[in-house]
Amino acid sequence: MIIIMTPGASDEQIAAVEEKLSAMGVEPHVSRGIERTVVGAIGDESKVEKELIEALAGVENVIRVMKPYKIVARSYHEADTVIDIKGIPLGGKTVQVISGPCSVETQEQMDAAAKAVAEAGCRLMRVGAFKPRTSPYTFQGVGVDGLTMFRNAAEKYNLPIVTELMDVRMLDTFLEHDVDVIQIGTRNMQNFDLLKEVGRTHKPVILKRGMAATVKEWLMAAEYIAAGGNHNIIFCERGVRSFETYYRNMLDVTAIPVLKRETHLPIIIDPSHAGGKSWMVPALARAAVAAGADGLLIESHPSPCEAWCDADQAIDPQELKTLMGELRGIAQVIGRDL
Amino acid sequence: MIIIMTPGASDEQIAAVEEKLSAMGVEPHVSRGIERTVVGAIGDESKVEKELIEALAGVENVIRVMKPYKIVARSYHEADTVIDIKGIPLGGKTVQVISGPCSVETQEQMDAAAKAVAEAGCRLMRVGAFKPRTSPYTFQGVGVDGLTMFRNAAEKYNLPIVTELMDVRMLDTFLEHDVDVIQIGTRNMQNFDLLKEVGRTHKPVILKRGMAATVKEWLMAAEYIAAGGNHNIIFCERGVRSFETYYRNMLDVTAIPVLKRETHLPIIIDPSHAGGKSWMVPALARAAVAAGADGLLIESHPSPCEAWCDADQAIDPQELKTLMGELRGIAQVIGRDL
Amino acid sequence: MIIIMTPGASDEQIAAVEEKLSAMGVEPHVSRGIERTVVGAIGDESKVEKELIEALAGVENVIRVMKPYKIVARSYHEADTVIDIKGIPLGGKTVQVISGPCSVETQEQMDAAAKAVAEAGCRLMRVGAFKPRTSPYTFQGVGVDGLTMFRNAAEKYNLPIVTELMDVRMLDTFLEHDVDVIQIGTRNMQNFDLLKEVGRTHKPVILKRGMAATVKEWLMAAEYIAAGGNHNIIFCERGVRSFETYYRNMLDVTAIPVLKRETHLPIIIDPSHAGGKSWMVPALARAAVAAGADGLLIESHPSPCEAWCDADQAIDPQELKTLMGELRGIAQVIGRDL
Amino acid sequence: MIIIMTPGASDEQIAAVEEKLSAMGVEPHVSRGIERTVVGAIGDESKVEKELIEALAGVENVIRVMKPYKIVARSYHEADTVIDIKGIPLGGKTVQVISGPCSVETQEQMDAAAKAVAEAGCRLMRVGAFKPRTSPYTFQGVGVDGLTMFRNAAEKYNLPIVTELMDVRMLDTFLEHDVDVIQIGTRNMQNFDLLKEVGRTHKPVILKRGMAATVKEWLMAAEYIAAGGNHNIIFCERGVRSFETYYRNMLDVTAIPVLKRETHLPIIIDPSHAGGKSWMVPALARAAVAAGADGLLIESHPSPCEAWCDADQAIDPQELKTLMGELRGIAQVIGRDL
Repeated sequence: MIIIMTPGASDEQIAAVEEKLSAMGVEPHVSRGIERTVVGAIGDESKVEKELIEALAGVENVIRVMKPYKIVARSYHEADTVIDIKGIPLGGKTVQVISGPCSVETQEQMDAAAKAVAEAGCRLMRVGAFKPRTSPYTFQGVGVDGLTMFRNAAEKYNLPIVTELMDVRMLDTFLEHDVDVIQIGTRNMQNFDLLKEVGRTHKPVILKRGMAATVKEWLMAAEYIAAGGNHNIIFCERGVRSFETYYRNMLDVTAIPVLKRETHLPIIIDPSHAGGKSWMVPALARAAVAAGADGLLIESHPSPCEAWCDADQAIDPQELKTLMGELRGIAQVIGRDL
Repeated sequence: MIIIMTPGASDEQIAAVEEKLSAMGVEPHVSRGIERTVVGAIGDESKVEKELIEALAGVENVIRVMKPYKIVARSYHEADTVIDIKGIPLGGKTVQVISGPCSVETQEQMDAAAKAVAEAGCRLMRVGAFKPRTSPYTFQGVGVDGLTMFRNAAEKYNLPIVTELMDVRMLDTFLEHDVDVIQIGTRNMQNFDLLKEVGRTHKPVILKRGMAATVKEWLMAAEYIAAGGNHNIIFCERGVRSFETYYRNMLDVTAIPVLKRETHLPIIIDPSHAGGKSWMVPALARAAVAAGADGLLIESHPSPCEAWCDADQAIDPQELKTLMGELRGIAQVIGRDL
Repeated sequence: MIIIMTPGASDEQIAAVEEKLSAMGVEPHVSRGIERTVVGAIGDESKVEKELIEALAGVENVIRVMKPYKIVARSYHEADTVIDIKGIPLGGKTVQVISGPCSVETQEQMDAAAKAVAEAGCRLMRVGAFKPRTSPYTFQGVGVDGLTMFRNAAEKYNLPIVTELMDVRMLDTFLEHDVDVIQIGTRNMQNFDLLKEVGRTHKPVILKRGMAATVKEWLMAAEYIAAGGNHNIIFCERGVRSFETYYRNMLDVTAIPVLKRETHLPIIIDPSHAGGKSWMVPALARAAVAAGADGLLIESHPSPCEAWCDADQAIDPQELKTLMGELRGIAQVIGRDL
Repeated sequence: MIIIMTPGASDEQIAAVEEKLSAMGVEPHVSRGIERTVVGAIGDESKVEKELIEALAGVENVIRVMKPYKIVARSYHEADTVIDIKGIPLGGKTVQVISGPCSVETQEQMDAAAKAVAEAGCRLMRVGAFKPRTSPYTFQGVGVDGLTMFRNAAEKYNLPIVTELMDVRMLDTFLEHDVDVIQIGTRNMQNFDLLKEVGRTHKPVILKRGMAATVKEWLMAAEYIAAGGNHNIIFCERGVRSFETYYRNMLDVTAIPVLKRETHLPIIIDPSHAGGKSWMVPALARAAVAAGADGLLIESHPSPCEAWCDADQAIDPQELKTLMGELRGIAQVIGRDL
């Protein structure tokens, strides 16, 4: 940690910084420059809260030298982590496409969806039983029964199931239904109590990036899960908030190489929630695989026009099949498969 | 609701839109222009999900004519709503300043803080017992005991207590401790299960704006609380995410006149979390009152440099007292008091 | 154009809107709904300024039905426009990679750079003679002599030259040096006098997106050039401003399918200025081609560590060559070549 | 300047950094910590380009210790700079309100506007003769004749004139018409050639903040003007781009205390272009004065509904007069006058 003092900082102020650092268990080193004095803190920087030093008189700026994240950091585990989901590897050479409708509607819809997902060559299925909706007056998901319908349909095709957990009180129900991958949605990325609870299980967790979360905040949210003992974390970028109004969110494709550098954990992309329109999905999905994503989360529906929610962003079975072919070609160009 | 068709939309496509609208319970009216056809939907627009119409072939754009929020809308209650907090009115002529430290530390700190808050002329006190922290490795708040220490200190000065609820499972504990105002933090603005639960109580709720939430999303989050029966909602703007890196968040002062127009409920401002530095607080607090805010949430600490968290953003008792004088002057200029 | 009146709009207010619309040359059509009255304007909407209607009493919202851009709109020219740059087509089946150093330094550097660019298989070269720098105290480019050095080097390899015009007074000099493609930088996207002047030439123009420009503003900026008679416009997305601080700009890959839908003109991507670090360039470049970009603008330097500016974002000749191979593979997967 | 090396940086890499720093004229000081090596650069940091160091192998991060701006920095001139505009001081104890219509229309309109501005108690007048419009098909300003009409009207009331310069080729015309204050608009904040030219005059310059410019970029843009010899610079915040769509721009009120700390030059606020609607203007104007702004730029029109552009954001003479009274009251509360 480096503490930059203001130009006219007094000796007493510098001494107070040194004292505070020592009290926090790190060793201060003072360098007096021509214009400014700089204090370096040698030792375990994670013991020091930046804000407490910034509050001291004469301090202009405090800069961390070490990363605040530990278990999720690339330095913790040099090789890429491959997460095993009922025998299906995510994070390795094979790019995994997870697909399915926005929400469970009926058993018939689930059966048709599972069939389409499997036939397109996807190896995992995602559907929502509980839906986070902007308005309290719109469809909120079919609830617990949805988990059963989803499981019934997916099992016929050996598709592990991925679904969103919104309420910490529902975790036991998810475990009873043996949900294979728990998804934490964008609105709950910093719902720390929820993160701590899923951190106590061993279920793979897809952690969606918050609507306007920085890469650092996202990695720190994952650290909450990891600190509880659960290292099976999959990052999912789904578009972030921007000034642009033409589409719903701006897909942050740069996050892919950045996360590959900062963490050993896999990263997948959700092109459907990013753009918000089905016609944008193929271009965004191809971009994600080309940039090095380990997987995709794509909304598909046996009959998009009849979907109960987000009808405008789901692609149909034929579009999914065609897209899978393109994605396979791109994966091969960069030495992967799909 | 107005549906704008693409330039080449066919008669079949227009008919399909009409049919869908009728099925949803609104009456379609078709206007064929020179370049485009426009379909108006007459009736209760809230029955129609925008996305389901946008998914239809030949539809270019769907525009809502009515506001999606109901109970919180200005049209629901023309006069300003004044919320009664143990006899203290919030939302009326008097601007209320709520103050206190970032977190409960010790009983002594709480006692000193309550004394300073009361002596400065504030009528409500806020402190955190549970803290949402970016890192799992930093101080997470003292927990339930903090509520007791807070209550003990505040009661001596007749200060109603305001504190943040993060975990839905803690709501009963908050009710047992008779917390006077429940704060929902920025990270939980769209934690819909939490909103629904506080909506079942009758406690006043301070709903902080999400880090990058639009005014519309914020109003809809409040609608979740209101739909449960609890109309005692206070909006709190605390700075939003922006591209600027000089300060932590950008205080959105425009949200004050905008909310005054859109809702009958009070709006307060948190200048401390906005700027993130104590030296910015007076300017931002004055701006908020001048723009018409109904109250402020200001972090103060008996000894900021020794605070256990956010030390750099708390003002000290003397600064609070001086600021209160300036705010009173400004309130009077615009016909209010403080 | 659709005008939505406030719930309590009076008959006089509605009549005033009708009158104003008629005066502007469009025909008003009033629909009185249960909650609100809506006025439609039939005719050439481009005659009506939105703000002038919004200023009328009782008007809540004014919505355009037609696109504000004309010549650049996809509807103006259904097929993709292919721009001819000294025999090299941009916007057709072949993806074009334009490369070169940030700035002209010396004749030797230019010669080495041109050689590397040609050997990697690129067909156009870009270098800056005039540099827009954030600070007045840093290197501002070598100036007019740079154009000569650039031309000398590029001609040996038959590479048309692309370079940035910052000052409208320099346009004649650019024409004298027969610059093949004029680049308008991000900071000048709405320098309307500059746009009007390049609109009077017939030189192909690369129009970089403004730092925080919406797609609509960008298309309208191009319309300024097109309205002058020059339709040889190439859009270039180079990352936009966001809240993220890990990298310089956020590459907006979604802009690719969006521009393909809205305009017939080509779109290229600058992955170098987007991320700002050379190690991010391959991932972003691959993503751009996969998403359907018509070309790329990639900074390369014969010896990046010795570059006079932006040294950290240029890739070296070997990296460029390797990347070209990957890009060719991806182009082929989606039915193009490179 | 502080250079943080990557954890595994080799001795050769550290030596290369030392060598580069020495070659640039600063003295390197190496500190080897437990996890990382940090290199400090002692001397005139402005000689070192950050990017050139970041490009070196083994460098993780480069942090500036000194501010990049010099003449505009608070440290260059401890006291507030008061700019004299034909005898009217801007930047001192008195808050100055500059007002007038969006654009010159006719001599009659100018006369009525000048009368209203003077009668409301404003001491400077602003009107546009040249208008930067998003669309090439809308009214572009009346041009040079507008300067004459504006001057004629303003002179009767001894109002110095403020108007926008968009095209560097028009500067001489502005000087011939003796424009009192040259305004550089938001779209030209980084039009460096324009900045350099106005830097060679001695005319006071209002430098509007770019649509998404950081405080640092804005200060550096001013440094371009100052470096040419013209120190009569007035910063103008006019709202920045954000994700919010309810209003046009987000007024960044925090920029006021921040600029007061970073620069000795005055800062004024444009509440009209920020919100974009006349009903937001009073609240934003009051907030600006309460936060410490040195002046305001307010759009007013003798008859807003008949304005030729931006009709929805101008306030009328009576509203201006009422607002001036409120602003005077607020100014007095904080020890200023108006």
